[in-house]
Amino acid sequence: MISKGRILKNKMADSGLVHIMASHSPLSARLAEEAGYDGIWASGFELSALYGLADVSLISMTQHLDMTRAMAEQMNLPIVADIDTGFGNAVNVVYAVEQYERAGAAAIVIEDKSFPKVTSLVADGRQELLRIEEFQGKIDAARQTRKDPDFLIIARDEALIAGLGQEEALTRAAAYEEAGADMILIHSKKQTPEEVESFVNAWKGKVPIVVVPTAYPQMDSERILSLRKIKMVIYGNHALRAAVTAMKDVFARIKSDGGIHEVNKHIVPVEEIFRLQRMDVVKLQEKRFLR
Amino acid sequence: MISKGRILKNKMADSGLVHIMASHSPLSARLAEEAGYDGIWASGFELSALYGLADVSLISMTQHLDMTRAMAEQMNLPIVADIDTGFGNAVNVVYAVEQYERAGAAAIVIEDKSFPKVTSLVADGRQELLRIEEFQGKIDAARQTRKDPDFLIIARDEALIAGLGQEEALTRAAAYEEAGADMILIHSKKQTPEEVESFVNAWKGKVPIVVVPTAYPQMDSERILSLRKIKMVIYGNHALRAAVTAMKDVFARIKSDGGIHEVNKHIVPVEEIFRLQRMDVVKLQEKRFLR
Amino acid sequence: MISKGRILKNKMADSGLVHIMASHSPLSARLAEEAGYDGIWASGFELSALYGLADVSLISMTQHLDMTRAMAEQMNLPIVADIDTGFGNAVNVVYAVEQYERAGAAAIVIEDKSFPKVTSLVADGRQELLRIEEFQGKIDAARQTRKDPDFLIIARDEALIAGLGQEEALTRAAAYEEAGADMILIHSKKQTPEEVESFVNAWKGKVPIVVVPTAYPQMDSERILSLRKIKMVIYGNHALRAAVTAMKDVFARIKSDGGIHEVNKHIVPVEEIFRLQRMDVVKLQEKRFLR
Amino acid sequence: MISKGRILKNKMADSGLVHIMASHSPLSARLAEEAGYDGIWASGFELSALYGLADVSLISMTQHLDMTRAMAEQMNLPIVADIDTGFGNAVNVVYAVEQYERAGAAAIVIEDKSFPKVTSLVADGRQELLRIEEFQGKIDAARQTRKDPDFLIIARDEALIAGLGQEEALTRAAAYEEAGADMILIHSKKQTPEEVESFVNAWKGKVPIVVVPTAYPQMDSERILSLRKIKMVIYGNHALRAAVTAMKDVFARIKSDGGIHEVNKHIVPVEEIFRLQRMDVVKLQEKRFLR
Repeated sequence: MISKGRILKNKMADSGLVHIMASHSPLSARLAEEAGYDGIWASGFELSALYGLADVSLISMTQHLDMTRAMAEQMNLPIVADIDTGFGNAVNVVYAVEQYERAGAAAIVIEDKSFPKVTSLVADGRQELLRIEEFQGKIDAARQTRKDPDFLIIARDEALIAGLGQEEALTRAAAYEEAGADMILIHSKKQTPEEVESFVNAWKGKVPIVVVPTAYPQMDSERILSLRKIKMVIYGNHALRAAVTAMKDVFARIKSDGGIHEVNKHIVPVEEIFRLQRMDVVKLQEKRFLR
Repeated sequence: MISKGRILKNKMADSGLVHIMASHSPLSARLAEEAGYDGIWASGFELSALYGLADVSLISMTQHLDMTRAMAEQMNLPIVADIDTGFGNAVNVVYAVEQYERAGAAAIVIEDKSFPKVTSLVADGRQELLRIEEFQGKIDAARQTRKDPDFLIIARDEALIAGLGQEEALTRAAAYEEAGADMILIHSKKQTPEEVESFVNAWKGKVPIVVVPTAYPQMDSERILSLRKIKMVIYGNHALRAAVTAMKDVFARIKSDGGIHEVNKHIVPVEEIFRLQRMDVVKLQEKRFLR
Repeated sequence: MISKGRILKNKMADSGLVHIMASHSPLSARLAEEAGYDGIWASGFELSALYGLADVSLISMTQHLDMTRAMAEQMNLPIVADIDTGFGNAVNVVYAVEQYERAGAAAIVIEDKSFPKVTSLVADGRQELLRIEEFQGKIDAARQTRKDPDFLIIARDEALIAGLGQEEALTRAAAYEEAGADMILIHSKKQTPEEVESFVNAWKGKVPIVVVPTAYPQMDSERILSLRKIKMVIYGNHALRAAVTAMKDVFARIKSDGGIHEVNKHIVPVEEIFRLQRMDVVKLQEKRFLR
Repeated sequence: MISKGRILKNKMADSGLVHIMASHSPLSARLAEEAGYDGIWASGFELSALYGLADVSLISMTQHLDMTRAMAEQMNLPIVADIDTGFGNAVNVVYAVEQYERAGAAAIVIEDKSFPKVTSLVADGRQELLRIEEFQGKIDAARQTRKDPDFLIIARDEALIAGLGQEEALTRAAAYEEAGADMILIHSKKQTPEEVESFVNAWKGKVPIVVVPTAYPQMDSERILSLRKIKMVIYGNHALRAAVTAMKDVFARIKSDGGIHEVNKHIVPVEEIFRLQRMDVVKLQEKRFLR
């Protein structure tokens, strides 16, 4: 059977750019699958937020791994697992890669921050990076641990987030490629794409680039494709932001309407939830097996 | 310290009707708290759907209890826990009540279906009820187990859902009150409120009624209040339906727009998620304690 | 790669009888592997006891599944998973088989009691069996769900435990074979093996028998082999009983000795625990990957 | 109601020395309670070993917290929770203290190693300590977070383990007391008690000392009491070592005996497990509530 990592690689080869949607649950992953995305971003940020917690290494690997596994069981897209710093040092990375590969992930993204991390886009966030050699050790640990050679190891280079500039970002990216990373994720806090675009243009490595244009939404597919070296775009938190927007709105309207009679017309019916839950499959099982 | 069960009882006494919003996560519970609801419905239906599973006793008590506890930790509203059938017989109910009370719930709703259950509103669903005496035993088990006398035990009467008619529904409700239920939840699959309203008008018991008007949204607060015997309305799945509606929409738009530049204007900014995650508190903790 | 179910089948074919040791943790499973057993019994009884709970369907599928998966990750023996009644009806069985096969189990044992169950060997335990057709539906559900045709479905026939006699036990066993069970587990509460031996001698079916001689320890390997139709013996709770015996003893001795100086000579040294935890592997990982 | 932290403090005041037994499960905790210990050590080392994992920050806070909570639910002794380094920095400590206090722990022990840790007693283990100020921040974070002022914060001083000598150990202990630690745990890898005894004799602080005499078993209660400043002794891993010893023995004997007929005489009967599982309580519940 062809692995999910291989499927993701094939999609990148075929289409030039894969579109990966953030998810915090099997339900949101299934919606992304139905909408035609190429893969799922098992986002630490979204899962932290689902639990009402800041994205600063408070949710545990157990919680994130369980949700990743639950997603892998309930839909077919390849999952790019956001494992933050790898939950500790290179020994923790070995353990994490064993667990995430087993849970059904197709790829991991591991970032070069120190543990515990602080989420990248927050204003004035504490951003401390590992020494390059230390992070190379983590990449190597991931490489030596994976069973499927197509399981993708994506190194997330936070030099721009940490304000260390393009030279440092390029130096790190080259070192991470050398250590065996299959792709480099470059991230920026700037409000426009220029910093990331400049990095991409200056990048001389062979491995392709991943971007997460949350802060610079102007960076659309066309603009990404024109840079040629980017093979993956991650929409990092739009599932959760969409859900929050709608829940705030509907909660307020039910209060002001004095009931659900109005909102009922504007949200999907219960039957749509039954469909997403595959109640039809359960009914068939009941018919076949309840005697 | 005043218990959450007591707070909920006081709210019912003060306002005549409490509004309980369904939730599937600490995040959605916090949004309901900010929107001014009186309590949270820790919904088995919503949590099943979050995991992509049908609401037929597939998610375990462990999963539902963990989510209930996580909600109780992250906001202050009383939680009405949907424990379905009590996860088995009366012995399971004893264990469940111990666990949910400890986890911070203010109330449980337990239903008179046989285990494993089938969700109530699905067309042609298998609906089997327990014998009345058997369910009375479960109510009694819950009563004898709770530590806080204000921990509410709400008996969910599914006779109308099972198509057994008003007489049976009234007989059951009376028997459940006699066994010690603090409130009766009456549910119906009809598309209009008349069946439930007729039940309420015919109800001669002393304990108040709970309704879940999902299928008959015309039953707004005014109409509920005019019946006088209803003290709690549960909005059973609107958080999830709102979230699904928005995710479907945003996922489709990102695809058709070729990027996030358009949807970015219509969903809450990342900073709003930071606020909900209490990044400000974390930053204060960093200032005080990172040395 | 050859599946664990296939490995277990091959061992039965080669040796005539496989010896399966109960386990409640990856640690005890690893010890059983080192001791030369053929497989692990992921025992619901032992896991319930580890949590201090009676074996009456209180621990959830989540808890048992997580422990089964943890065992499968930490040693190489095939795991025979004790899934009790399948956690509900045939729909629950479908879900359970999907999950346990994915978690790495080689086989399941499913019993013909009603949910929630009561442990088999307790004096005067409530023992209610399903109708035969209903349990056949569960076996069929398991068969149709497994992906690996070598994943073994073992039907546990509790007719003798329920006091229904040999005829009923044989009728049920035949019906379970007809529904697709790969093996029949026959259990008895008698203090001697005669009841089980009589059943085995009277059994005309083609599928082999599994025994659990807890209550009739006289039934040793020689006696089992002489019956010819038994291919698997499960030592159902000896890991836990051994551990309890030793902890009681050591706890008492430390109290009476006024310290650990005496018991220290009679229990394995800390270094033996390090070995079982594979600290040597971690040290190698540190050398290779910490830079 | 008097808190578990208060109970533990009272026991120290009354008896001069409390005896805390390591535990890896509700079952072993209940056995320690029956044996008359004063409290339970919710040991990270034992729980890691139960999962077959090295004690190097691989098991997650979720796993350890869940087991701590399960113990607190199933017996009445105060629990001293081994939270290692606090699962990250001071922000993680805030979260951990909230969670462990809520789960029912009476005390935490937090150690001054960097995350991820390496178990203390292994030969040639990597042992890196935090800067003193950094660890003081963690202690302060724990102090400011606890709700119950009797919830004990025990600072584990690993200077001797790290080979930094008595001066450094004393400097650290004084700094930790100053930051608000309620007790100092001092640990050593030496094979005899002299290093620890010398530290205790040189200690000028006001807060009492905790010892874990695993490596120097000669340090019995009499010898501990003669030092006067030690109020707590933790038996750090004897539950697990006893269990491993017995399982190895019983597993080997069943193999060599060709059955369970011999070992059956040397281990507790199944009925003793039923007693520990409280099957009698379940039977009473069945009588009262199953109708």
